Amino acid sequence: MAIKIHGRQLSFYVRTAMLAMSEMNVESEIIEDDMHSPEYLAKVNPFGKHPAVEFDDFILYESRAILRYVATNYGGLHLLGSTPKEKAMVDQWFEVQGCNFDPPVRRRVPDVAVVEENLSKFEKLLNIYDAQLAKTKYLAGDFYSMADLAHIPLLHRFVASSGKESLVTSRKHVNAWYETITSRPAWKKIVEQYPDV
Amino acid sequence: MAIKIHGRQLSFYVRTAMLAMSEMNVESEIIEDDMHSPEYLAKVNPFGKHPAVEFDDFILYESRAILRYVATNYGGLHLLGSTPKEKAMVDQWFEVQGCNFDPPVRRRVPDVAVVEENLSKFEKLLNIYDAQLAKTKYLAGDFYSMADLAHIPLLHRFVASSGKESLVTSRKHVNAWYETITSRPAWKKIVEQYPDV
Repeated sequence: MAIKIHGRQLSFYVRTAMLAMSEMNVESEIIEDDMHSPEYLAKVNPFGKHPAVEFDDFILYESRAILRYVATNYGGLHLLGSTPKEKAMVDQWFEVQGCNFDPPVRRRVPDVAVVEENLSKFEKLLNIYDAQLAKTKYLAGDFYSMADLAHIPLLHRFVASSGKESLVTSRKHVNAWYETITSRPAWKKIVEQYPDV
Repeated sequence: MAIKIHGRQLSFYVRTAMLAMSEMNVESEIIEDDMHSPEYLAKVNPFGKHPAVEFDDFILYESRAILRYVATNYGGLHLLGSTPKEKAMVDQWFEVQGCNFDPPVRRRVPDVAVVEENLSKFEKLLNIYDAQLAKTKYLAGDFYSMADLAHIPLLHRFVASSGKESLVTSRKHVNAWYETITSRPAWKKIVEQYPDV
């Protein structure tokens, strides 16, 4: 039976949940319900956010918590790192993604000054990523991890639709990483099924 | 040898790292260095943030990653949950703390409208916490976890210095939780050593 993901397929946090399941070959199905409805707030996620996922006996929300759960319980423990240090690096880059990477590119804001400021923040961030990715093939080391996976949907949308994709493609190591992680069959399957960005 | 934590003791993210070590009876020492200096950026944290912690053979930044590492490697695995579902709930509330709880109370902003808006967000959030804490003694279940610990320094400062502590104390279950988690010896030791809020 397919696992139910509450959320809209265009949301990149929903897509990270779909992608984690695709990576583990777990079938998932999208339920595009209203995250502000009283029923959703009472039964799914009181914070009124997508995604939330129905597992066997409980509902889980917050995308990074979902990614950890899917990795841990569907055969992807290695995606969270194998040694204590690897695990720590996955955790660290998971936090970098949530706290540093996403904010400047997450929202399409109408305010040009904010856009410019955010792009400048994003450039600085990509310089740090480029330096890291010159040292290791993936963010947390020389292994693909959930921390890489969590970047894919947002980064893909940025490259595909921002008109500023050169920020990514002009940085050698970031670009090679981007090409590698978006070439994975798990992501290709999602792009085929849901080509809109 | 005490573990070195880079950061200012007044920062609540630094305090969560201190608190995690205190909880594990690991000795730590604070290094109040400049997080924007070229040396710090090159050798400690390229993102220019506190805290960062020097473990045996590597430096780790991002406070929640630090909390996970300390729990995992210094005898506190139970603080991350024992069953798959417990672990998922700890992860979920960890994310709630970072994405929902902290933002409205983190910064002291001079703009009254923003303060009002943030307080209103915080009240809604505390209602959700109160409903959760009516069901379970701690956030992730009936066990104390790193997700609870991560709330302590910021919540303590809010109660001690915002003048709005009734938001917390007037909510029965939130207040009982607050009293319980801030009564732990590990936190009392930190407040004794660093009484400023």
